[in-house]
Amino acid sequence: MSVTSTYSVIGMTCEHCVTAVSEEVGRLDGVQSVHVDLRPGDVSVLTVISEAPLLSEAVRDAIDEAGYAVAA
Amino acid sequence: MSVTSTYSVIGMTCEHCVTAVSEEVGRLDGVQSVHVDLRPGDVSVLTVISEAPLLSEAVRDAIDEAGYAVAA
Repeated sequence: MSVTSTYSVIGMTCEHCVTAVSEEVGRLDGVQSVHVDLRPGDVSVLTVISEAPLLSEAVRDAIDEAGYAVAA
Repeated sequence: MSVTSTYSVIGMTCEHCVTAVSEEVGRLDGVQSVHVDLRPGDVSVLTVISEAPLLSEAVRDAIDEAGYAVAA
């Protein structure tokens, strides 16, 4: 099984930011892939594919750990 | 002795970019310090302090290596 979820992330401006967030989120248990649609100056969209539903709190914490915030 | 030189760098958007450029330029022989005045969406100013004058070609190459360009 795989589950797709998306998050709107604030403050990502470049490929380094994509790498930082992808690494943090990619470390979560069960994550199969992470993709970011980078929109500098706007909200970027993070798509996570996982084996089972993820706790959104865990994903938010990972994004926060990388130095960014999830839009409400 | 120390020599200060400045370069206008295009495309730097976040602190990850600052780190990438500072590391590349900091590797050049004789460099004592590197500072970036980050201006996302505009030209950022890179200030290099070195023991002796640097070849600007070498600094440009280092900036290019990090993935950015020097404004004319």
